[in-house]
Amino acid sequence: MSVYDKLRALEITLPKLPPPASKLVPFVRTGQLLFVSGQIAKKDGKPVRGQLGAGVTTEDGKAAARTIAVDLMALLHDATGDLNKIARIVKLLVLVNSVPTFTEQHIVANGASELLNEVFGEQRGAHARSAFGVAQLPLGACVEIELIAQVADGA
Amino acid sequence: MSVYDKLRALEITLPKLPPPASKLVPFVRTGQLLFVSGQIAKKDGKPVRGQLGAGVTTEDGKAAARTIAVDLMALLHDATGDLNKIARIVKLLVLVNSVPTFTEQHIVANGASELLNEVFGEQRGAHARSAFGVAQLPLGACVEIELIAQVADGA
Amino acid sequence: MSVYDKLRALEITLPKLPPPASKLVPFVRTGQLLFVSGQIAKKDGKPVRGQLGAGVTTEDGKAAARTIAVDLMALLHDATGDLNKIARIVKLLVLVNSVPTFTEQHIVANGASELLNEVFGEQRGAHARSAFGVAQLPLGACVEIELIAQVADGA
Repeated sequence: MSVYDKLRALEITLPKLPPPASKLVPFVRTGQLLFVSGQIAKKDGKPVRGQLGAGVTTEDGKAAARTIAVDLMALLHDATGDLNKIARIVKLLVLVNSVPTFTEQHIVANGASELLNEVFGEQRGAHARSAFGVAQLPLGACVEIELIAQVADGA
Repeated sequence: MSVYDKLRALEITLPKLPPPASKLVPFVRTGQLLFVSGQIAKKDGKPVRGQLGAGVTTEDGKAAARTIAVDLMALLHDATGDLNKIARIVKLLVLVNSVPTFTEQHIVANGASELLNEVFGEQRGAHARSAFGVAQLPLGACVEIELIAQVADGA
Repeated sequence: MSVYDKLRALEITLPKLPPPASKLVPFVRTGQLLFVSGQIAKKDGKPVRGQLGAGVTTEDGKAAARTIAVDLMALLHDATGDLNKIARIVKLLVLVNSVPTFTEQHIVANGASELLNEVFGEQRGAHARSAFGVAQLPLGACVEIELIAQVADGA
């Protein structure tokens, strides 16, 4: 089953993301590795703001992480022209905007991990991960996720 | 001297770690690189909790980082079947659960760095590193460490 | 134009950095990838201290990030013997020592990103990046940056 069929079955449409501000690029490929810049949670192009443990619930955070995974897939599509060329989601770095008492960063991160597994299947979608609480994020976003993927041989 | 001889000399037994919850994997290999998921400090399978600068001392944190290095070596063993196949410890990312006044994250991180150097020797064990204070960690753990290693050619 | 010509045009002299304390190394090369340890902001060899949002302004932080980029280039020079052998700045991880209300980590990070683009040119200098607020940094530094670069084929 194509990754795109799976996205359709989940009724997920990949957004067209605006180019990043300043001198950044959304991704860099080196050899077979694709390093994707940290993406903050957005809705309708605007940051989803707030801190986990202070107004933003674990479920809110998990949903935000899922929408970031959609944006990350849009960037993987831009980088490869074909998501089926992604051989492996290698690693996520999940930054959760947390008050000092919030300890469910791993559950927030599951919002992204579960979707990537669902779309790419376990063989390609299961990944290494680190999740932790940060003091604050750019524009006050509630979650930011950075991703490393491996592109298939010859792709 | 084999890495296992060195571990025996240090009276370190590698634990058998439980599989991670959810859709994660403890490590992903891509080419010669092995990306190991962030591991939180544990004792008898339970998180070692607390914040550096608020009850947890620098020495406590350093000891916790050392036990994480043991767990990371257990995962490197699982990933390769033979720790002698590790060509290089490449990089550690050391996340120290810190109150905003605690500034000895590098000393905490040395607990892991020193053990890896001792076990693998400087040529293979000396690594790049970033250490910093996080607002909080999953399950309230005091330290979390992520590792990248290089596997030997042909291994 | 050589990278060194560009540095001269910007009146930037690469410092000779002291070796890191303890068992760390400032960089590890594996294949074509160069992993550079997180560098904290320093002036005259001493940490530039403080938190963004509490005395340290966004402009101060951006200037600190720029000086870290100079130190990172000094390490890239040490690692390769010739900065012109750097094929690509791949990724920055920018850790900004932030009070929980400070949300301009991306602007602070631009201090490093803009200089790397200027020196290496966009083709080689444009990079992936994650920037976020940390609770605190080693020695109380205001900013820490970790870098991954790609070395040219055959270099």
